[in-house]
Amino acid sequence: MFARRFRDLHPYVPGEQPTDREYIKLNANENPYPPAPAVREALDSFDIALFRRYPDPDAHALRRGIAAMLGNGITEEMIIAGNGSDEILSFVFYAFFDSDAPLLFPAHTYSFYPVYAGYYSIPFERIPLEKDFSINLDSYLERPSSGVIFANPNAPTGRYLSPAEIRRFLERYPADRVVVVDEAYIDFGGESVVSLIREFRNLVVIRTYSKSFCFAGARLGFAVADPELIQALFTTKNSFNHFPVDALTQKIGLAACENWPYYKAINSELAQTRDWFSGELRALGWEVVPSLANFVFVRKPGFTGDEVYRAIKAGGVLVRYFDHPGIEEFVRISIGTPDQMRTLLAIMEGITRI
Amino acid sequence: MFARRFRDLHPYVPGEQPTDREYIKLNANENPYPPAPAVREALDSFDIALFRRYPDPDAHALRRGIAAMLGNGITEEMIIAGNGSDEILSFVFYAFFDSDAPLLFPAHTYSFYPVYAGYYSIPFERIPLEKDFSINLDSYLERPSSGVIFANPNAPTGRYLSPAEIRRFLERYPADRVVVVDEAYIDFGGESVVSLIREFRNLVVIRTYSKSFCFAGARLGFAVADPELIQALFTTKNSFNHFPVDALTQKIGLAACENWPYYKAINSELAQTRDWFSGELRALGWEVVPSLANFVFVRKPGFTGDEVYRAIKAGGVLVRYFDHPGIEEFVRISIGTPDQMRTLLAIMEGITRI
Repeated sequence: MFARRFRDLHPYVPGEQPTDREYIKLNANENPYPPAPAVREALDSFDIALFRRYPDPDAHALRRGIAAMLGNGITEEMIIAGNGSDEILSFVFYAFFDSDAPLLFPAHTYSFYPVYAGYYSIPFERIPLEKDFSINLDSYLERPSSGVIFANPNAPTGRYLSPAEIRRFLERYPADRVVVVDEAYIDFGGESVVSLIREFRNLVVIRTYSKSFCFAGARLGFAVADPELIQALFTTKNSFNHFPVDALTQKIGLAACENWPYYKAINSELAQTRDWFSGELRALGWEVVPSLANFVFVRKPGFTGDEVYRAIKAGGVLVRYFDHPGIEEFVRISIGTPDQMRTLLAIMEGITRI
Repeated sequence: MFARRFRDLHPYVPGEQPTDREYIKLNANENPYPPAPAVREALDSFDIALFRRYPDPDAHALRRGIAAMLGNGITEEMIIAGNGSDEILSFVFYAFFDSDAPLLFPAHTYSFYPVYAGYYSIPFERIPLEKDFSINLDSYLERPSSGVIFANPNAPTGRYLSPAEIRRFLERYPADRVVVVDEAYIDFGGESVVSLIREFRNLVVIRTYSKSFCFAGARLGFAVADPELIQALFTTKNSFNHFPVDALTQKIGLAACENWPYYKAINSELAQTRDWFSGELRALGWEVVPSLANFVFVRKPGFTGDEVYRAIKAGGVLVRYFDHPGIEEFVRISIGTPDQMRTLLAIMEGITRI
């Protein structure tokens, strides 16, 4: 009863959610803090009778709110909102990346880039990271490409490129090919390249509410780009589906960006926790890749990532281990509250003594 | 900057939302009644701190609630929930309909069936409706096919097939090809074929919360089928995206199906309004296709659908007109409250006198 195309599928395996005991969950880059109180108020004041109506398919009010939050001359016409940044990414791949030359992205980065490329039969090439896991954008200029995508900060490394570095790349990259910067983790100390969009009409910036806005349980993300590119993403969306952002998520998403100072405060606290935790780990003899994300990528000489992951899990904390050549000695640790990180530090100190 | 595949897109044009004046909106098959009070309570008691966590990707509690509501021996393993029935439909097309023979569906039916078929390069054939707009399932047996999909009641006609008629078809259709019955409008007087699923392992039933559950503003739909088919839909979903139903929608969706008697009452009231309105219209000389949906499909001899649509709009009510050969004399009118339908009747009585 199954289509031939079905037989070739490789389903994504979501992160584990074990139920044998209570774990501290530091494996999904979720924010340890709750959303702004205004989000609760937005839920309370939501007129439930509105549910019977279809939502605004274009999410006008939300997009205006996002534009106001972003500043930098960004307007509503430069924004499209979607059901999580994953949905936006799928439109971006469809609309912008052709099959005449490979799409380029880092050897280690968000695992869904090759999935979407495969879905639309877009050839791709994984560009090796430097020894210190940084992205060397020069190497993206040395070969033909139909486009470039990378996360900044990158995942799972946490490595960051400054707007100046990205600008230098954009100045040399073909202006008729799209460059996508996925800023899922930009709000934890990095500086956005949204400020470059008016200058580079081939630049697309992707954002998600899941991390810095504490909205993983909702589904909301957006892209920022030149109005012509955004219009193309709307055309793509409207050619395939009916899935607008639901009415409630539009409302709470707007409340969230109107309360950006709250998020700035909690994310700055989180960045401080990350930097303190990184220092403590290094003092214990761990290698910690410099991170501007809400996670750190670490290893201990003499241990595999799998061993570290298991030892930490035995201590009651879940972190993430990737069985990929080149990063198999590392684990990725999402930053939680200071208390959670102290608990984890005590466990990791114990690993040293094995 | 655009991919070649982008140039071939034909975006869907959503229903109009004019802002020049206040209209009574009877053009989108939205339910005129609010959701059950329990949905408000579910919003009120939602722990907003949970938003920072990713939702249950498998929506276990919701699926158990749906199974309990459906009865008929349906279990959680026989259900997959998605962001609206459109998302579920896209998985169904991908997983079950092959390209070796055409997918069959009615000449006039939900406009997204050809869209999804095109998206996955699935050949399709539109089977003409009978003169009275009913679906003759015998004609679906007379040609090779990779599967069949139809809406029951069908849209935009409102025509309905009984479980006995569908059973007779399933008994003769190849058991290794999937038959999809899209029951978006079943709750307004029709009887579901969910009761046939245990007997016919190639039957997939699609449901949406948008109409009978007054949840158009949220995005929630589901499929019911044999566990093997549902597992295939999960595999498809998990191969492409990360878009679980968000945490809040899972919770309010559960509250809705636990309060099914409320919806049964409002939808029964709506069906009465439909039948009364149909009778009044016929008395005024209109042809009304017999409907078991939350809309009626009507025409007035001597008028085009476009003329009728415009005259009704001039009176302050929005209905839907389809510029498709064979149905261009008709308008589709969603059923609202009795007051709204009385207002509309007065307008339509006026059209007679032009």
